[in-house]
Amino acid sequence: MRLVNDVTVTQLTDRLLASYARVGGINHLDGKNLPSKSAVNAIAADLVRLLFPGFFDDKLIHSSELKAETATRMDSVWERLEDEIYKSLEYAPPAGVKKKELRPMARSFTGDFLASLPLLRELLQLDVEAAYNGDPAALTQEEVIVAYPFVEAIAVQRLAHELYLKHIPLIPRIMTEWAHRRTGMDLHPGAQIGAHFFVDHCTGTVVGETAVIGHHVKMYQGVGLVARSLSGGQLLRGQKRHPTIQEHVTIYAGATIMGGDTVIGEGSTIGANVFLTHSVPPNSLVIYEDVQVKVLNKLARPVDFQI
Amino acid sequence: MRLVNDVTVTQLTDRLLASYARVGGINHLDGKNLPSKSAVNAIAADLVRLLFPGFFDDKLIHSSELKAETATRMDSVWERLEDEIYKSLEYAPPAGVKKKELRPMARSFTGDFLASLPLLRELLQLDVEAAYNGDPAALTQEEVIVAYPFVEAIAVQRLAHELYLKHIPLIPRIMTEWAHRRTGMDLHPGAQIGAHFFVDHCTGTVVGETAVIGHHVKMYQGVGLVARSLSGGQLLRGQKRHPTIQEHVTIYAGATIMGGDTVIGEGSTIGANVFLTHSVPPNSLVIYEDVQVKVLNKLARPVDFQI
Amino acid sequence: MRLVNDVTVTQLTDRLLASYARVGGINHLDGKNLPSKSAVNAIAADLVRLLFPGFFDDKLIHSSELKAETATRMDSVWERLEDEIYKSLEYAPPAGVKKKELRPMARSFTGDFLASLPLLRELLQLDVEAAYNGDPAALTQEEVIVAYPFVEAIAVQRLAHELYLKHIPLIPRIMTEWAHRRTGMDLHPGAQIGAHFFVDHCTGTVVGETAVIGHHVKMYQGVGLVARSLSGGQLLRGQKRHPTIQEHVTIYAGATIMGGDTVIGEGSTIGANVFLTHSVPPNSLVIYEDVQVKVLNKLARPVDFQI
Repeated sequence: MRLVNDVTVTQLTDRLLASYARVGGINHLDGKNLPSKSAVNAIAADLVRLLFPGFFDDKLIHSSELKAETATRMDSVWERLEDEIYKSLEYAPPAGVKKKELRPMARSFTGDFLASLPLLRELLQLDVEAAYNGDPAALTQEEVIVAYPFVEAIAVQRLAHELYLKHIPLIPRIMTEWAHRRTGMDLHPGAQIGAHFFVDHCTGTVVGETAVIGHHVKMYQGVGLVARSLSGGQLLRGQKRHPTIQEHVTIYAGATIMGGDTVIGEGSTIGANVFLTHSVPPNSLVIYEDVQVKVLNKLARPVDFQI
Repeated sequence: MRLVNDVTVTQLTDRLLASYARVGGINHLDGKNLPSKSAVNAIAADLVRLLFPGFFDDKLIHSSELKAETATRMDSVWERLEDEIYKSLEYAPPAGVKKKELRPMARSFTGDFLASLPLLRELLQLDVEAAYNGDPAALTQEEVIVAYPFVEAIAVQRLAHELYLKHIPLIPRIMTEWAHRRTGMDLHPGAQIGAHFFVDHCTGTVVGETAVIGHHVKMYQGVGLVARSLSGGQLLRGQKRHPTIQEHVTIYAGATIMGGDTVIGEGSTIGANVFLTHSVPPNSLVIYEDVQVKVLNKLARPVDFQI
Repeated sequence: MRLVNDVTVTQLTDRLLASYARVGGINHLDGKNLPSKSAVNAIAADLVRLLFPGFFDDKLIHSSELKAETATRMDSVWERLEDEIYKSLEYAPPAGVKKKELRPMARSFTGDFLASLPLLRELLQLDVEAAYNGDPAALTQEEVIVAYPFVEAIAVQRLAHELYLKHIPLIPRIMTEWAHRRTGMDLHPGAQIGAHFFVDHCTGTVVGETAVIGHHVKMYQGVGLVARSLSGGQLLRGQKRHPTIQEHVTIYAGATIMGGDTVIGEGSTIGANVFLTHSVPPNSLVIYEDVQVKVLNKLARPVDFQI
């Protein structure tokens, strides 16, 4: 075993620089500015504070301060978000738009987006009510807002969806990935999600880009609304690849529902851990046949079960 | 496409303020102080350091400093936790308790709680031993404490369970949600968890409020001990809704066990991804029938499998 | 209910100190320095920046600054990593190595490890390409690097695997656990993972220590390549306990594949939520029999389905 080596920091640096020159595609140098992950994450956190005033601040907000606090935060978010949207548009300019038009376009998009916050608040209030009504473990709506990861995840998805609809690149995915990291739930900004939505526990739940979810849908941890993995790959972009869930459907933990043509009829219940690749009519109950139970000889214990 | 818009920050602020006035339930203004999430999270981190001295500090602790360091940390935790418990009690005062009694009650609860730390340490030592003994990938108990998310998750649940038993609102859930975010495992503070517990990998595992888990139970990632989603909703509060797992049971990854009447008999093994909604007797082995294996024509490759 | 209690901070501290003296195994006092979690985490973050220059920095890097920035970061990482590796070696010295040899050995290991970065970059470029080609939701490779948790998880595993091969204790697991916490995916540093690897969404996916994964394997969230839980426990250390996945295999969400003898033949597809404990030949399609669909009487709604 060598206990000394003679490689120097300079040599290691030179080798890595040679790799930077040789292995493309995973460097980002001299390129256009990309939107900053840390800036987008901080903006997302401030937007959540604007949506739920008083809940995500360290100190209590009094009505008397509310107007000034809100105006200050709104002003700050506008300035920072406009900058990030500008970088996004510069990175991938919309067809036919000149460079000098990008800054006014970024400003316009930002204003329109911020004007949508009151509407999003109305949707989010319905989500919080659905969560509270659906979970006997919740003592108050305040507990739901303070302690349920779902609230942050759905708030960020509804925000990011507005930006997705404006075809702003990168920022919507950075936002939902921030929420994914914090909550374990990966809701794509493209997904269309109805009112009165609730996902309990959240960890591992995935909703794909072209999924459509009706009103009053309730899901649990580990649910996947996913696409087939096809050899078409990038050629499938833009096609509907993820399922449609109609109103008043309940999907238990770990169920995986696949495919753009798959429709779960209204009022249906999908059992835990089911893998479903075709449509089912309204009011269906979908489960596997009864599991097999073997009762082993008690005297034989302890043995290693031969699974 | 509009490249300018004339909406101003003032107008956006006014619209949002109007929404604050109109859409209730997701504001927290002029209300009682809620316990602070960031304060509760910092207290939880300090409690974990008190439970495992020397493991979660950045520098090594020598025995000579231990008494002074422990006293300082204990003093700081007492003061901060008493404040948060006071806010919790003020937010939802116990029946028949006057406002002036809340501060002494918060102090008493805090003292009782901190007096339980030595007992919790004995339980946690058994959990760490169960983890080490059960996982051949663990080289030492120290590796388990430093690198297994389970240790933090179970420590926080056992702490929060003590506060839950005192009917302190909000704080127990904020604490376990902090651990959920960090480890991916959602152990409700209400769950009764026996000694020698171990969950490997943790991500996605959920244990509900009224679950009862016996001694020597071993689980894996993605396991759910969950409730039926019933139209009763909030009316079901307080009922036993989650299963009972007897001693020496092993539950493999992704298994979902549902219902307050469901009892998994001692010594049983539940296979991965099973969805079980009824009781099984002691020493059961529960698996699905053999999976179906289709071998496709090799010449036909590559095709998109028709799942 | 007691509204006062007379326990003091001093008394609580004394009781906890008595527990520190009595309950061993979960203290770390007067011992050798363990590698610092926070230091190892910061090193991992800097290594990811060295692997993907310009992507994980807050500001844009120009080519003109690249050499100086890279040299500075390389120098800093070398110094800090050597210190942590030294602590690891001191904690568990390799057989027959004297204390005075540990520092040169730590230096040598660090240099060798850092010299492997260019090779790791070539592997990671193939992983990023596999991700982009396999997911129609990805608009550019840059979106994959900025917004897919997979990139960070696989980069950290490939880094940690190099340290694992040198038998350095603790640090590889601390590194992959850092990525596990951030991405929800637990890839053990011991796993042998081929080129062109991709895991979409990541949350809940677990790959065990002795798993072997061929080239061009694609997996989804919640997949487990796991070991049987046997009474052998620590006696099984070093044995192959996790499955082998051959080339061009696709494993859908939530599938659990168990056992060291289990081999998934090349070109196979494993359906979602399958629990597979035996080998399958090449080009297999593995799914459960069709799920059972009950269509309930529409008039009967709303009722609670009797799952």
